[in-house]
Amino acid sequence: MHFVVTGGAGFIGSHLCDALLADGHDVTAIDNFITGRPGNIAHLRDNASFRLVEHDITQELPAKEQTSLGKVDAIYHLASPASPADFTRIPLEIAIINSVGTRNVLEWARSHEARYLLTSTSEAYGDPLEHPQREDYFGNVNTIGPRACYDEGKRFAEAITSVYIREFRVDGRIVRIFNTYGPRMNPNDGRLPPQFISQALRGEPMTIYGDGSQTRSFCYVSDMVSGLRAVMDAQPEVARGKIFNVGNPDERQVRAFAELIRIISESNSEIEYRPALQDDPARRCPDISRISATLGWRPVVSLVEGMARTIEWFRTQI
Amino acid sequence: MHFVVTGGAGFIGSHLCDALLADGHDVTAIDNFITGRPGNIAHLRDNASFRLVEHDITQELPAKEQTSLGKVDAIYHLASPASPADFTRIPLEIAIINSVGTRNVLEWARSHEARYLLTSTSEAYGDPLEHPQREDYFGNVNTIGPRACYDEGKRFAEAITSVYIREFRVDGRIVRIFNTYGPRMNPNDGRLPPQFISQALRGEPMTIYGDGSQTRSFCYVSDMVSGLRAVMDAQPEVARGKIFNVGNPDERQVRAFAELIRIISESNSEIEYRPALQDDPARRCPDISRISATLGWRPVVSLVEGMARTIEWFRTQI
Repeated sequence: MHFVVTGGAGFIGSHLCDALLADGHDVTAIDNFITGRPGNIAHLRDNASFRLVEHDITQELPAKEQTSLGKVDAIYHLASPASPADFTRIPLEIAIINSVGTRNVLEWARSHEARYLLTSTSEAYGDPLEHPQREDYFGNVNTIGPRACYDEGKRFAEAITSVYIREFRVDGRIVRIFNTYGPRMNPNDGRLPPQFISQALRGEPMTIYGDGSQTRSFCYVSDMVSGLRAVMDAQPEVARGKIFNVGNPDERQVRAFAELIRIISESNSEIEYRPALQDDPARRCPDISRISATLGWRPVVSLVEGMARTIEWFRTQI
Repeated sequence: MHFVVTGGAGFIGSHLCDALLADGHDVTAIDNFITGRPGNIAHLRDNASFRLVEHDITQELPAKEQTSLGKVDAIYHLASPASPADFTRIPLEIAIINSVGTRNVLEWARSHEARYLLTSTSEAYGDPLEHPQREDYFGNVNTIGPRACYDEGKRFAEAITSVYIREFRVDGRIVRIFNTYGPRMNPNDGRLPPQFISQALRGEPMTIYGDGSQTRSFCYVSDMVSGLRAVMDAQPEVARGKIFNVGNPDERQVRAFAELIRIISESNSEIEYRPALQDDPARRCPDISRISATLGWRPVVSLVEGMARTIEWFRTQI
């Protein structure tokens, strides 16, 4: 099969490309490197089944590229900056990518009659008042807060995806990605695992915003990729028009998480507390009963195992 | 002053144009008549202070029009289909108008350094779990439901407005419009007042979806216009970047409302109950304490008085 992966040079996108190629599929990655990194796909350069199209999805795909794309069977739409650091750096770009960009990708799916998977986010729940979050929880998002470009951008992406599913018979599905970690995370993107690991490996203080009692649940990237693929591969009867949480329900307090990283990396870093960030969720934990019950998926990599692999990779980068 | 009113041929937009012109301002209405109606502004054709630009805001304004627009002091952004009947008829258009269209209008505000007012909606609260709704309530919206094109479209419009306010120093404000009624409502647009009035005047059964215990609170259009103007005219210190509910907190059950219309219009119509609509809010009532406290605005037209005027107008149409 021929898969398109928007954001294919990103952290999760590049692992997804690897997995699809390993199973013998053809893969076209589309990326404009606004946050994706050439290094993430450098090892695929000589793979005859892989192609990179350097393109900004908020723009029309040039006619030449449209032709050379050939028949597309399925589109994984992952393209979007997703790190909190980006929310203040490029908020307009994030809003446009998720609205205009998502619309353009939906038009490709429509014209190719390709199956389509939108990667949305646990941020669609905002600062949730229900724990863990089920897919039918409508969320608690500040529409005009500093994270709104992303949270509302993704909620809009879900809404316009549902319009294409209803109006234009697109076989679309939505995954809400919960915190994911692993090799190829940008060490400087402001998310917790790379931040803690970088600080621990450099022997710098590990920074916690707030008192560290807020919870996160982290999913190792290979589990995330298998979850995305399970949703994409599911029959329309069970997946079309549906939202699936994908993540790891192993919920930990942020300070316990910092402690674990300090131990695995054998670091002497101290933990430094700073004022809490605006709209930073107090708890975040997926309810994965829908995908477990209907598709039999669940994460298999433990936090200790995944973190050891991730720290190993970060050692080669720092 | 020179005001631009997007959606200026719409129900509320046309009344706003009238009010601005009556106070001696220049007004440019922009409308593509997707739901706006030429009849709403026909009486302004010979007014030298009024100009109509027939234009779809999801497209770039042609250079010729940009030039002839001249200096713009303030932009009221009202353009969007807003009736439930439109949500199933033109959902993609609604999503695109509120995302791409709002972005284009924000760019005009930025380049003209014009004050900007986004009309959002009480639908941004979805099916609210808090009553009445204050502006800092984050809502309860189904991102993939049949109303999502509008609800999430408007929430996205609020989010991208906040990006322009923060990043590009636009002097923007947001009004969440609650149910409004009055002359020039489209008799066939599916909203409650025109539906009930049309049915009552024709002697047809008055249709209630659900058991009629759901509440609405209706604001007469002249009150709405004065509310929008109060927010636009407010100093940046009190209004910039803020959301204001504008509506009438006089909350009534839908069946009581139908009864009132039947009485005022001296109709013999029966009331007919049908199954409830999906995602139809159970209650809807604005908390207007913010605009009342900071700007001194409150509605002054009673429901009986406003309804009598509205029914009078509908008699001339049916």
